[in-house]
Amino acid sequence: MKALLINCTLKRSPEFSNTGAMIEKAVKLLEEQDVETEVIRFTDYDVKTGNSSDEGDGDEWPEILEKIKEAEILIIGTPVWMGHLASTSQRIIERLDAIFHEEGTTDEATGQYFTYNKVAGCLITGNEDGAHSCAAQVLWSMQELGYTVPPNVNAYWVGLAGGDKDYVEGGGERYLYTNKTLRVMIANLVFFAKLLKQNPITTDWNKLTKLAEAESVSE
Amino acid sequence: MKALLINCTLKRSPEFSNTGAMIEKAVKLLEEQDVETEVIRFTDYDVKTGNSSDEGDGDEWPEILEKIKEAEILIIGTPVWMGHLASTSQRIIERLDAIFHEEGTTDEATGQYFTYNKVAGCLITGNEDGAHSCAAQVLWSMQELGYTVPPNVNAYWVGLAGGDKDYVEGGGERYLYTNKTLRVMIANLVFFAKLLKQNPITTDWNKLTKLAEAESVSE
Amino acid sequence: MKALLINCTLKRSPEFSNTGAMIEKAVKLLEEQDVETEVIRFTDYDVKTGNSSDEGDGDEWPEILEKIKEAEILIIGTPVWMGHLASTSQRIIERLDAIFHEEGTTDEATGQYFTYNKVAGCLITGNEDGAHSCAAQVLWSMQELGYTVPPNVNAYWVGLAGGDKDYVEGGGERYLYTNKTLRVMIANLVFFAKLLKQNPITTDWNKLTKLAEAESVSE
Amino acid sequence: MKALLINCTLKRSPEFSNTGAMIEKAVKLLEEQDVETEVIRFTDYDVKTGNSSDEGDGDEWPEILEKIKEAEILIIGTPVWMGHLASTSQRIIERLDAIFHEEGTTDEATGQYFTYNKVAGCLITGNEDGAHSCAAQVLWSMQELGYTVPPNVNAYWVGLAGGDKDYVEGGGERYLYTNKTLRVMIANLVFFAKLLKQNPITTDWNKLTKLAEAESVSE
Repeated sequence: MKALLINCTLKRSPEFSNTGAMIEKAVKLLEEQDVETEVIRFTDYDVKTGNSSDEGDGDEWPEILEKIKEAEILIIGTPVWMGHLASTSQRIIERLDAIFHEEGTTDEATGQYFTYNKVAGCLITGNEDGAHSCAAQVLWSMQELGYTVPPNVNAYWVGLAGGDKDYVEGGGERYLYTNKTLRVMIANLVFFAKLLKQNPITTDWNKLTKLAEAESVSE
Repeated sequence: MKALLINCTLKRSPEFSNTGAMIEKAVKLLEEQDVETEVIRFTDYDVKTGNSSDEGDGDEWPEILEKIKEAEILIIGTPVWMGHLASTSQRIIERLDAIFHEEGTTDEATGQYFTYNKVAGCLITGNEDGAHSCAAQVLWSMQELGYTVPPNVNAYWVGLAGGDKDYVEGGGERYLYTNKTLRVMIANLVFFAKLLKQNPITTDWNKLTKLAEAESVSE
Repeated sequence: MKALLINCTLKRSPEFSNTGAMIEKAVKLLEEQDVETEVIRFTDYDVKTGNSSDEGDGDEWPEILEKIKEAEILIIGTPVWMGHLASTSQRIIERLDAIFHEEGTTDEATGQYFTYNKVAGCLITGNEDGAHSCAAQVLWSMQELGYTVPPNVNAYWVGLAGGDKDYVEGGGERYLYTNKTLRVMIANLVFFAKLLKQNPITTDWNKLTKLAEAESVSE
Repeated sequence: MKALLINCTLKRSPEFSNTGAMIEKAVKLLEEQDVETEVIRFTDYDVKTGNSSDEGDGDEWPEILEKIKEAEILIIGTPVWMGHLASTSQRIIERLDAIFHEEGTTDEATGQYFTYNKVAGCLITGNEDGAHSCAAQVLWSMQELGYTVPPNVNAYWVGLAGGDKDYVEGGGERYLYTNKTLRVMIANLVFFAKLLKQNPITTDWNKLTKLAEAESVSE
């Protein structure tokens, strides 16, 4: 069982990342459950803008995509910017859009996306308001891309209105609500990842597409 | 296995509802899988504004809540208004918020919300743009409330930009993309509902809360 | 110069409303600028679900609509529920949608909506995260409906992650960021309302529609 | 009077951009009103991830920022990706966040952001649903950053549900609703830009901040 945690901070290494600090908490909990973990910082990679699996020209997205494919659990750790999802996190979603239009992204027998039987969750940190909106954007996208979204798989900490303190300085590491929801999130992600490993989804996209074609007019 | 489908059209009976027409398609697919179905139109009930399980004064939410508790599958069928989720659908979310603050909404042994081991999906119709945003709002709320969100559990149809045609008049019933995604949605909802019936979630909120308390300062 | 402030709390009179407390601050600032104010609580009216100007059957929306038409400044005060805009606020947006499809909602000469030359802003309170997302939903809708949105016309206060304190109990009334942004909001709303009274928008929808028709194919 | 139009397509030059085609329509309308225009494609610049005015290391954001400061009208042209605002557009918002925390971004006398007395609008194109949500995200951010948002300043075209056609191929250039709203958008932007040039906003942030401090406790 493997989990990939992507830190979508806008900051580049070796600058300190608050989202990274929250991710470390998640890593510890995953390891307690014998899940192998890998953390990457998105800005450490030269990921081109685009919506294919490989934009060429030194694009390092293919490396990240390989890690995503190998992991049963994906956790997006994202900061909030102006109440919205960070551009880095949105870029991950855009690159994964290739699932919908590229050859080789679906299982030949079932037509399922390669994300089927994988689970996703997210962590959000910020100096002020916006976490729920970011979580909605990430988790909706994940289910659209084929991931399963177990219950209660978003944990967050944000500062006060107009605040200038972030997760660590603001005491997020010892904040009960955040710690509790983070623990539930990890437990549910691991439960579902194991469950789907033993009981893969049986939905046959190829068969359902044919049935839909029979009741539809050609577009 | 039981599914509850709530039609959140703003229109009152017996006025024709496009969202209702799409729900009928879902009902047929559920019945083919031997799932018992019940469809209700939200505006047929006098649901008070509020965030408790019973607002008194003739409030008919308790009747709907009882149906929600009995169903393993919940499908919210919602129209889009001004690019946003209909107020009716948001009112369902507000009333379910009681889960977070009322006695008796969680399992005594595990501390899980009563929604655990249930699955949720949504259908969206509208004369123009807004479906993805509505779906994100509904599905995020559902996972926050304790529902499991399987992959690809939102199907939609909307008209062209500034359009005045809705689902039926616009040909949505014979539109391939909508029909295909609806079939996948139902298949995935039924698969997960059965899976969770046989393999209930084991996450122990009470135990995790205690562990979180030990690493947190009192607020 | 007249301002209408609508309190969209889910609570019914005479229950205390935190959003109402924040609205009182706005009222005081407006009066200091010699703006006449009226505050109404949405739940005090029997507003039917729908998207017309009058849903009949005792619908009290027409009373509110009259007040909206008389006021140069509209302020929506809304609570956050589950990270989203309250259903009450969304219902206001749905009812105003009549602007797009009813006779008599536009000026005969210019084709402008009756909302032209009026300005809108919003206040948001909540026990936790979601204010920016609510503000985006309200303000976007207002510009779509024909209102002018001056800079910095949303002020908010929300509690900590997972918090159970609201505006008053949480100290929002004496919270600098909220008080500062509220003052700027009121100043900008009043400035623009006066500016547009003296310099009405000259855009001619009828003429522009004809020009657009000449470059478009019939739909 | 100058307008800057930023094309936020994910595609790099010289690849064809549908958003660019829609922007060309806006340019023509602006020039008819004697507004000087400049169009830039975001991906032609090496804009670093971050939230400051200059991230160093070859960052080309300062060049764009200079153009933004010189223009009275800013139009963001953005594609929709997975129902959300493109990461490129969000990166612009993130970089402009510097307004809130950097020296020299506000007027010394009034404390107003440099964006005051400027106006903003947006254009949205996509193969399917998401335009309203993108517009809400852009326009809310713009008013938060200090721009004025006139009425009806978002025009869009998107394809059918699950569609694979974009603006040009789908006939967006000759689509009435899109052409009409685009014309209104440009008329309103130009009207307000001129109005604010002649009647600058008088709000005094410095004075209002002091008044707010007097009624607040230190944080």
